[in-house]
Amino acid sequence: MTLSISKDTRLCMSLSGRPGNFGTRFQNYLYQELQLDYLYKAFTTTDLPAAIGGIRALGVRGCAVSMPFKEACIEHLDALHESAATLQSVNTIVADDGHLTGYNTDYSAVVRLLKQHGVPEDSRYALRGSGGMAKAVACALRDSGFSDGCIVARNEPAGRALAAQCGVGWCETLDDQPAQLLVNVTPLGMRGADAEQLAFDERAVAAAHWVFDVVAVPVETPLIRLARALGKPVITGAEVIVLQAVEQFVLYTGVRSDAELIERAARFALTE
Amino acid sequence: MTLSISKDTRLCMSLSGRPGNFGTRFQNYLYQELQLDYLYKAFTTTDLPAAIGGIRALGVRGCAVSMPFKEACIEHLDALHESAATLQSVNTIVADDGHLTGYNTDYSAVVRLLKQHGVPEDSRYALRGSGGMAKAVACALRDSGFSDGCIVARNEPAGRALAAQCGVGWCETLDDQPAQLLVNVTPLGMRGADAEQLAFDERAVAAAHWVFDVVAVPVETPLIRLARALGKPVITGAEVIVLQAVEQFVLYTGVRSDAELIERAARFALTE
Repeated sequence: MTLSISKDTRLCMSLSGRPGNFGTRFQNYLYQELQLDYLYKAFTTTDLPAAIGGIRALGVRGCAVSMPFKEACIEHLDALHESAATLQSVNTIVADDGHLTGYNTDYSAVVRLLKQHGVPEDSRYALRGSGGMAKAVACALRDSGFSDGCIVARNEPAGRALAAQCGVGWCETLDDQPAQLLVNVTPLGMRGADAEQLAFDERAVAAAHWVFDVVAVPVETPLIRLARALGKPVITGAEVIVLQAVEQFVLYTGVRSDAELIERAARFALTE
Repeated sequence: MTLSISKDTRLCMSLSGRPGNFGTRFQNYLYQELQLDYLYKAFTTTDLPAAIGGIRALGVRGCAVSMPFKEACIEHLDALHESAATLQSVNTIVADDGHLTGYNTDYSAVVRLLKQHGVPEDSRYALRGSGGMAKAVACALRDSGFSDGCIVARNEPAGRALAAQCGVGWCETLDDQPAQLLVNVTPLGMRGADAEQLAFDERAVAAAHWVFDVVAVPVETPLIRLARALGKPVITGAEVIVLQAVEQFVLYTGVRSDAELIERAARFALTE
């Protein structure tokens, strides 16, 4: 209830170029169900240094960081957790008495999901994408022991840089070498202009053992639908977005809630 | 409902050395009853410039300003409304697309209350106090046409300066000249160490026609109780705090709500 907000209520927030509602709905749902005196609100800004200065000065407890601020925020923080230092990309700021530490819960969520789903580390992967989230996923793969793979990216400099960082190859389009794990970290299949696009073709999906799509809206992308139709186990973008938000929730509140409640919060947040 | 907070919800806030709950409860009550997509939260800070920079950068809609920031905030604003310029004291910031204007709704609330209660302008007043709020009340008296009076203040430099600003005299303790309007703008009678203190003695109250106490917690101060017992019409601190909050509400939302709803919001906010 808004009426329970008091001077002691702690504010968590997000900073993003184009705020969505997922974080606000997910975190506030959990705060309310668990009766935590917290409040979550999404913001955008055209002045990142001042926005982060405000977080510090106002005693905001934590802040989710999205495009285009994930790298730019780093110079304004006091410390980087290992998850963010590896990537030089921050998606979460935690403030302890004005001391700001950057984390990357996308990275840690992907590490967890690969383990939870039991994807074998010796699987050869093909990861499509070369942006900030692709970097998080590729580094999570690398640090989870996946050493055989290929970064598929039209952007050659970014693709080659990411491939070198992960000790794997780069190709402009998917090569003929079969990959057991297909990973999409592009907007292909996302609601909007690319909604009908298939991130990997049917032949590649048929040859794969696992399909991982980071696109969360919609959860059932063309790629995920095809993989399901071909009987392949999938990891969805909804799992990533929820798990990274759970990790943020834990960082902000210190509380780890049970799976059933997280499931309800996720359903509430994803079906606005 | 916290669950109705979305990316579009507008944040209003307060900055104060020691945040209370009145503003948070009053404003959120009205937002909820009127179904306005606003949210209010109290903050404190040890870095005022960064806090105001954050207000600007995060698109916060408005901010109530209390001690000790009322004067210090001025250099960080873009403009001062007449109400704040007169006093060089701001209790409200309104942000329009990053353009910050300072107002003083304490001043405007007192102007309104003197008129509402029909206090005759030719009444001689004795105003006790010389701090920021005393300045707001004394200037409101001056600008409402009260030209005969006395500033009663132990702090001689502050008392003399305020008296000069209002074209009236200064005295260290109440002089023998009878005052028709007694105004207390000190903490005397406020919950805490001074709770039992009477801001004006019984002889002065008996001689007065009006008693105005700015102390709002509790509403029934020893001075107000004595005035009521002697049959004197009173203006209470609750009236000031509510009316100045109503003026803030109107500045933030553009909505003027009806008296019955304000009454309910005030009761909710004052009886936490």
